[in-house]
Amino acid sequence: MSAQISGKAIKRLILYHYILSDCLLKGNEYISSQQIAELLKIDDSQVRKDIALCAASGKSNVGYNTKELKKSIEQLLGFKAQKAAFILGAGNLGSALAKHTDFADYGLDIIALFDNDPAKIDTLLNGKKIYPLSELHHVATHEQLVNKRKVEIAILTVPASAAQNSAELLVHAQIKYIWNFTPVVLSVPEDVRVCNENLVGNFLDFTNS
Amino acid sequence: MSAQISGKAIKRLILYHYILSDCLLKGNEYISSQQIAELLKIDDSQVRKDIALCAASGKSNVGYNTKELKKSIEQLLGFKAQKAAFILGAGNLGSALAKHTDFADYGLDIIALFDNDPAKIDTLLNGKKIYPLSELHHVATHEQLVNKRKVEIAILTVPASAAQNSAELLVHAQIKYIWNFTPVVLSVPEDVRVCNENLVGNFLDFTNS
Repeated sequence: MSAQISGKAIKRLILYHYILSDCLLKGNEYISSQQIAELLKIDDSQVRKDIALCAASGKSNVGYNTKELKKSIEQLLGFKAQKAAFILGAGNLGSALAKHTDFADYGLDIIALFDNDPAKIDTLLNGKKIYPLSELHHVATHEQLVNKRKVEIAILTVPASAAQNSAELLVHAQIKYIWNFTPVVLSVPEDVRVCNENLVGNFLDFTNS
Repeated sequence: MSAQISGKAIKRLILYHYILSDCLLKGNEYISSQQIAELLKIDDSQVRKDIALCAASGKSNVGYNTKELKKSIEQLLGFKAQKAAFILGAGNLGSALAKHTDFADYGLDIIALFDNDPAKIDTLLNGKKIYPLSELHHVATHEQLVNKRKVEIAILTVPASAAQNSAELLVHAQIKYIWNFTPVVLSVPEDVRVCNENLVGNFLDFTNS
């Protein structure tokens, strides 16, 4: 994906993609920027500006071809370039994310889960195996050597008390991106990036505005 | 909470609160803005600016009193003013959010869940009862009349195919804020606010930057 696209534009483009998917399901061949803008309660000119990033062009009077615009967004945001990821913590949240059908469509390929609960180990979740946390480094190495897949992303959904230790296992396994759903600020080396999925902050920001 | 605080500042203050909670657990009585800044890999001056919003003052050489700063953030962000909320969809994600111990600490009081699975109805999840979706309006009215609690917030974690119908039930039950975790752009009246928890967008923004 081009690094020129702002985070806000990426998030809007994903919402346009949701709308376009829904239009296709309903058999709507065309959609206008006004229709998208109204659904999202944003300005029409913003929608047109974002869509211009895809180099998609609308026809006057009928709008954009739904199927083509959907494909353009997929190309722009690079959904086809699947990125391999682990999930640490196979509780409710980890399970929900593992089953998130969207993720594969949007380029996030979850290949294994890790947990310390003996009852969960070696079971499958949405077709993905659950390993003990102690095997993280081993599984990562195996993926790289045998399956030629470098796993650089991990989704952290372990309990708060296990968060920092898990982060250290991830660093040891050469994970470069940690998507952190725990309420813990992780201490990691400079070259490891952490994205804090701050649900509490999102909620407070939302109900405060 | 003051409407003057930006969304970004709110999210940083929540992260400081996580750090302070951890410090208290470890028995650290003081923390400096530099220590917070280093953990979050952000600028020290940003931390001091945010903390100034709380009217908390540090002592030179020792830093901020952990317990006092934690309390100041709680007051600033209004954690004590509990807001009542429903969760629609008691699957993995809904269950994870219902069990999210943090939410109550940060002012979000989940009082009931709704689902259409007969096996789940009338069971308890983290002490909260699961009702059929058809009872949403009734439960909301009961909360207002009997328990004197106006429920204005709903968390939507139903399957995509049920999202718009659920949103319409919420509008009918006079919910004013919908925290939408589904991959669907909801069509709702002007006075209902929707916050799209765009996990896919957050992921793409994170790994693109």
